[in-house]
Amino acid sequence: MGYDRFVAESGRVNDVLNAVNLLTWDARTQMPAGGTASRGQQIATLTSLARGIVTGPAMRDALAAAWDEVAAEPEDSRRRRAVAAMQEGLAALDRIPEPLLHEAALLKTEAQAAWVAARARSDFPAFRPYLERSFALQRRVADALGWAEHPYDALVAQYEPGMTLGRLHPLFAALRSRLVPLIARAQARPAPRRDFLERDYPVDRQKAFARTLTELVGFDYGRGRLDEAVHPFEISFTRGDVRITSRYRPNFLPAGLFAALHEAGHGLYEQGIDPELGRSVLATDIVNLYAVGGASFGLHESQSRLLENRVGRSRRFWELHFPLLRDAFPQQLADVSAEEFWRAVNLVRPGLIRVEADELTYDLHIMLRVELEAAVIAGDLTVADLPAAWAGRMRDDLGLEVPDDARGVLQDIHWSTGYVGSFPTYTLGNVMASQLFAVAERDPAVAGGLETGDYAPLRNWLNQAVHRHGRSRLPDEILRAATGGGLDPAPYLAYLEAKHGG
Amino acid sequence: MGYDRFVAESGRVNDVLNAVNLLTWDARTQMPAGGTASRGQQIATLTSLARGIVTGPAMRDALAAAWDEVAAEPEDSRRRRAVAAMQEGLAALDRIPEPLLHEAALLKTEAQAAWVAARARSDFPAFRPYLERSFALQRRVADALGWAEHPYDALVAQYEPGMTLGRLHPLFAALRSRLVPLIARAQARPAPRRDFLERDYPVDRQKAFARTLTELVGFDYGRGRLDEAVHPFEISFTRGDVRITSRYRPNFLPAGLFAALHEAGHGLYEQGIDPELGRSVLATDIVNLYAVGGASFGLHESQSRLLENRVGRSRRFWELHFPLLRDAFPQQLADVSAEEFWRAVNLVRPGLIRVEADELTYDLHIMLRVELEAAVIAGDLTVADLPAAWAGRMRDDLGLEVPDDARGVLQDIHWSTGYVGSFPTYTLGNVMASQLFAVAERDPAVAGGLETGDYAPLRNWLNQAVHRHGRSRLPDEILRAATGGGLDPAPYLAYLEAKHGG
Repeated sequence: MGYDRFVAESGRVNDVLNAVNLLTWDARTQMPAGGTASRGQQIATLTSLARGIVTGPAMRDALAAAWDEVAAEPEDSRRRRAVAAMQEGLAALDRIPEPLLHEAALLKTEAQAAWVAARARSDFPAFRPYLERSFALQRRVADALGWAEHPYDALVAQYEPGMTLGRLHPLFAALRSRLVPLIARAQARPAPRRDFLERDYPVDRQKAFARTLTELVGFDYGRGRLDEAVHPFEISFTRGDVRITSRYRPNFLPAGLFAALHEAGHGLYEQGIDPELGRSVLATDIVNLYAVGGASFGLHESQSRLLENRVGRSRRFWELHFPLLRDAFPQQLADVSAEEFWRAVNLVRPGLIRVEADELTYDLHIMLRVELEAAVIAGDLTVADLPAAWAGRMRDDLGLEVPDDARGVLQDIHWSTGYVGSFPTYTLGNVMASQLFAVAERDPAVAGGLETGDYAPLRNWLNQAVHRHGRSRLPDEILRAATGGGLDPAPYLAYLEAKHGG
Repeated sequence: MGYDRFVAESGRVNDVLNAVNLLTWDARTQMPAGGTASRGQQIATLTSLARGIVTGPAMRDALAAAWDEVAAEPEDSRRRRAVAAMQEGLAALDRIPEPLLHEAALLKTEAQAAWVAARARSDFPAFRPYLERSFALQRRVADALGWAEHPYDALVAQYEPGMTLGRLHPLFAALRSRLVPLIARAQARPAPRRDFLERDYPVDRQKAFARTLTELVGFDYGRGRLDEAVHPFEISFTRGDVRITSRYRPNFLPAGLFAALHEAGHGLYEQGIDPELGRSVLATDIVNLYAVGGASFGLHESQSRLLENRVGRSRRFWELHFPLLRDAFPQQLADVSAEEFWRAVNLVRPGLIRVEADELTYDLHIMLRVELEAAVIAGDLTVADLPAAWAGRMRDDLGLEVPDDARGVLQDIHWSTGYVGSFPTYTLGNVMASQLFAVAERDPAVAGGLETGDYAPLRNWLNQAVHRHGRSRLPDEILRAATGGGLDPAPYLAYLEAKHGG
């Protein structure tokens, strides 16, 4: 009885947060400009209603009764996991006072608008007061949530349960020590030809090819859509309705294509979650009040990076599928071979912009951000000193001078929206993607499929190892069960070495 | 203070119901098939949350305090109207017990599925038990809401405040006595040529033309969209985000074109409502728990019928704009004149299907339904006898034999979804459209605009008379203020006589 009531209340939370997801998706893909003013309010109202259900007396009562029913079940029973997930989420929400959440929501809107304006004029001083308030507020969130070693730990754990700065430091050190010489060697090699990437690629045909490619890797359009968005993203409303987006540049082919593959990786995760978890707390991130089926931000990113890079930037992938691409763009690619295309989309060259970074330099962009944001949260670095610290790290890490703040400290949206602590999950995703891929490709069916262009065996392997579990297991548990060990950069570094070591 | 709290609570209701509208719009225009199962649950949860806010202690308390603040204001002050609207809505919700609502929601899903299946096989007996339950349940709703003269009055008033069967009967009698001879005369005339309407009209170009046409009449795409849907509809999420739909048949040109104009009429109404009413109870139908800005179903329909028929089926409209249509379809319309097109889309011929009916026969379809549904609700007719009664009325009114129930009693979705009492609003819309149009076209600016193809003066007139008021006035008040009188079929009959009296 108590468990049933708990399930019913959890279902209501999931319904409301899936409606929020639809409001968000629509705002980014369909909504006319006139809808902007009201949409934020609608999302705020629904999010607050979801919080109200989680923290309300009916949930607390159901939760207590449900715990009595499931406490004797094995530690990994889904029923027990569900109750525990809600208890933990509720405890986190209880630790953050409502006024602090309200302040964060208001600041998010203000700071994001200030960031857009400041970035357009490359005017850090205009954004600085908002960023100071944003970091100060996130520090209060960290203190409210509670932490032992470092205040940053409380923030990063919102996105990656169990992750701490103490665990990130050695991981980052191991990556850095190998990436820096690899980058130097890659840079010393002459660049392959890239001229053909910037020809005239009609967006309609890019869209059609993105659809072909995402179908090829198994994204199910009976349970999903692909639309256009300024900043590509994936979002789901149930296991049966998972939507991905891409954005297309008329004179740069790879952008839309790899964004579509990346988001399809997220999409396969959401489509692959056991349907019985649908509408449950195990398809709901209670701490962030966000309906999502994947176990963590990092594990989610592992699925997108795996598809984008381990599959989509592999030589074999383009040996197999470049003819399809040339069918879509016969004039533009008439003088290009599969090998040339593959080399062009794998060029390593340090750049200023994270979202345009290649496989080798990407994680250095992440480490820079993580170390700076952790220092600000701890009070070891002031916001005023951020631009100089940023420029120094870019010089040291990538040998680049930052010409202006728009191409430096102002380039990412994350800090303005309060997403402090989420950057590590990008690198964690890269690392976990290669750990999982290394095991998967030892499976003969998976390896055979990659060789012939049949991605069903890989998808099935990922489904068994990762997707189906949804949030019923912690990311560490999923990783250990799949690979036999914990977080380990070795497979990722081995892959990068083999591909880019030259 | 009380009023402010009332405004805040009302805003929350409006936000939730606008999210429901988005869930609905998405389900009908964008959602992949896999989303169906969860979407109904999401809508049910949000609707129930909206009801919970309206009937909750915070609202009751705020409402009582707000009434004390506004009671001394003039009877037509917007603040006072807002409080009164919520009081009335709450009273109606309080009269319908939650279990009855819940039963209605469950039956709606079941009965709609049964209707779809039964219509496909033209199998009335399969649908009969659902229809019996549906009518029995609506009778309980009527009794719960309360009525004086006839139980049907309680149902129709949900859609048209102040309307009763007693007011409808003389209106219908007046219409019928003139329509029947008009139809006979129109039928006696030879049909104009219609062959060209059924040529090959590529859907993409139909869509582009529908956009052109709706822009021409002033639908604002900065605050709206036009999409495709199986059953065209209009829906809004705020004054700044109003969405219309149409459906296009590749071999029948008028369907998509007039549906787009019809929905644009609804859209202009929603876009034209005073923005200060946005997010208020005066943009929310509390009784039906539906976010809508227009004053009633009937007045809404008056705006769509006015644009579709009084403007869009006028001779002058096609004299002016047929060249645009021929530009869109040069081959298909090479041998057609504006006059021929206008005649073709105004042909009067009795038919079995309401949604395909011409201007003269349409209201007879409505009266048939209203009289039958009122008789069933009163217990004067059994559901078992409906098909025969339907066939008898079709024979008497339109001289047609009903060959099967799919083209008879099973053709409309309304009864399966519990919309008993909404049919009258179609005819009320026709009548009010002509009352308003008769006054509007006496304005020289409006008349001049209709002559030259500038619809801004008409739009402005409608905005002043109707749109801007939203739900801050009753439909009767709006009609009286605009026309100097109450509901009156004379202008409508005069128009039909002049156009079709021949």
